[in-house]
Amino acid sequence: MTAEEARSAFPVLERYAYLNAGAVGPISHATHGALIDAEREELEHGRASWPYLIGMIEARSHLRDAVAAEVGVDADRMSLTTSTSEGCRIVLAGLELGPEDEVVTTDGEHFGLLGPVHASGARVRVAEVLGRPAGEALDAILAEIGPQTKLVAVSHVLWVNGHVLPVHDLKDAIAVPLLVDGAQSVGAIPVEASAIDFYTVSGQKWLCGPAPTGGLYVKDPERLRVVMPSYFSQERHEPDGSFEPRGGAARFDPGWIPVPYLAALLAALGGAPEWRFERSREVAEHCRDRLVGAGYDVVTEAGHSNLVSWRWEGDTMAAARVLGEQGVLIRDLPGTGLLRASCGYWTSDEDIDRLLESMAGVS
Amino acid sequence: MTAEEARSAFPVLERYAYLNAGAVGPISHATHGALIDAEREELEHGRASWPYLIGMIEARSHLRDAVAAEVGVDADRMSLTTSTSEGCRIVLAGLELGPEDEVVTTDGEHFGLLGPVHASGARVRVAEVLGRPAGEALDAILAEIGPQTKLVAVSHVLWVNGHVLPVHDLKDAIAVPLLVDGAQSVGAIPVEASAIDFYTVSGQKWLCGPAPTGGLYVKDPERLRVVMPSYFSQERHEPDGSFEPRGGAARFDPGWIPVPYLAALLAALGGAPEWRFERSREVAEHCRDRLVGAGYDVVTEAGHSNLVSWRWEGDTMAAARVLGEQGVLIRDLPGTGLLRASCGYWTSDEDIDRLLESMAGVS
Repeated sequence: MTAEEARSAFPVLERYAYLNAGAVGPISHATHGALIDAEREELEHGRASWPYLIGMIEARSHLRDAVAAEVGVDADRMSLTTSTSEGCRIVLAGLELGPEDEVVTTDGEHFGLLGPVHASGARVRVAEVLGRPAGEALDAILAEIGPQTKLVAVSHVLWVNGHVLPVHDLKDAIAVPLLVDGAQSVGAIPVEASAIDFYTVSGQKWLCGPAPTGGLYVKDPERLRVVMPSYFSQERHEPDGSFEPRGGAARFDPGWIPVPYLAALLAALGGAPEWRFERSREVAEHCRDRLVGAGYDVVTEAGHSNLVSWRWEGDTMAAARVLGEQGVLIRDLPGTGLLRASCGYWTSDEDIDRLLESMAGVS
Repeated sequence: MTAEEARSAFPVLERYAYLNAGAVGPISHATHGALIDAEREELEHGRASWPYLIGMIEARSHLRDAVAAEVGVDADRMSLTTSTSEGCRIVLAGLELGPEDEVVTTDGEHFGLLGPVHASGARVRVAEVLGRPAGEALDAILAEIGPQTKLVAVSHVLWVNGHVLPVHDLKDAIAVPLLVDGAQSVGAIPVEASAIDFYTVSGQKWLCGPAPTGGLYVKDPERLRVVMPSYFSQERHEPDGSFEPRGGAARFDPGWIPVPYLAALLAALGGAPEWRFERSREVAEHCRDRLVGAGYDVVTEAGHSNLVSWRWEGDTMAAARVLGEQGVLIRDLPGTGLLRASCGYWTSDEDIDRLLESMAGVS
């Protein structure tokens, strides 16, 4: 697949400098085609026949395999969720923490992780990583860990500045379980999650699938309680609701996934070129260099992920809106004074030119 | 809207005697059209522009109004969920029950309710209603309530036999909160939920919306803790995840709803004729009469809802499959020896003829 072929898969790129996959990724013709084919089938043949249900079960199985393969883990340990937020909720609630327990996180996390951390009822210790060089993040996190720590919960890639946290070094350095939020990593950088205790996957960001879709890797499903059971969680149950959980991490599946979405996410996963990580790395670095060269105060260090963030004097939301009206789609990060560009393998150098040109015109 | 116009909205009815809305409802041309229009827009213009996000927020608000109107409650007290199971999880987890507490339920509930009841950690008391006349259900439930009861959790319409539980009489008779699972009621029978403490809505069954969609009515949002927060739950948050919840029941919104689904469920809700409840009552009664007349052991009493169930000697799953191959789509109820037909306002007397004819041919 050439770079041109890869770009032409995404119609949105014909109109926009689409630099916002960190929020939601672009949709390809193939992914959209899988959606509408399955929806046409549902319209004409319904959603309740035996063949339909068999097909649904098989598609869930294929998707579980494919999502697991994205992060290098056994499919048996992968739950199919709707989002990374939901994965975080499943883990935080299932650990059944109390007010004497502590969870260590960072000051660079999204509410999708932080909300469940807070709701767990545990005390929260926040390592300050945003104000430091990325190389000091590991020590900053380790410094917050104490005898009451029951979980460390951090992102693999910080959504605020795109810095990659050394999650494997972190795992090696701690004795407690590690929850890694993969919202900005899976599909953006190579991920090998098998050694991590819990790892969340977003289907709709860098994997360019339908929204919402996702996954949750659970290294040891027997050691996490199923506190949010769905019909898919159980093999059989008693009249009082007590149940025998399904084998593996499928017990954490929170519910029905639209059959068209099963097909569409599978199509999306199959559409990425082999060179995706090399190219996105290259174009993200190019974007960073261009911004630095143009005098912007870039807070993302070189050599990290696909997100590049920089300071913006004035109203970031207004700036993002004005750029959007010119066809340049980026993300403002509320409360930070930052703008963020997401560079995928589909991003061209011309997209970056458009970003710089448009910004030059915004006061 | 004539009966013929109502039927012609659903292409699946051209091919099948579709008697399975209790599992998942049929999809109309209009609902499907709303889906594919929105998906085409996402393909071409992406899912991250400012106008897209504004449109999403507005569509959520319109949908919240429409779902609330279906059950006669203030939109401010309606959360937009993905399913009745998820609604049950939000309530059961949010009440933070312990092993000294009791929850009273019935022996006619779906795992979507029972699973969360069990996961709450409370003791579960199961009122036996299936083996009794429907008129004795209320007393059977009240008999299980004791000083430790913290919640009564029952369906409005039992999925096993279609009996309508007198939930308003139940509410009047108890002092503890009442959770009513509306999976088989909303869109099937008239519902006035405002007096009930918690009421769940399914979008994909009798409302004929995309799957999964749903709602959760919470009479007093301030009295239920947000234990499964999403980005939509908060107005603002601190670095440790503590947050100011949004006003009303929107704080329980578990996450992103596909923008095409917002449009499609709205279209589905707008498509139902005024006479829907009268016609579905009539055809369900006709179905029951025909089954009784043909000598089947019907366990559904006259005068209840849109579900009709009857005993089947032999393998119910095999019977449902054979009927399905003949274009008659019904539900087998695992472990009960029952088959179940779902009769909607779109169901014709000819559909019932086909059911009887096909069954006569199955040994």
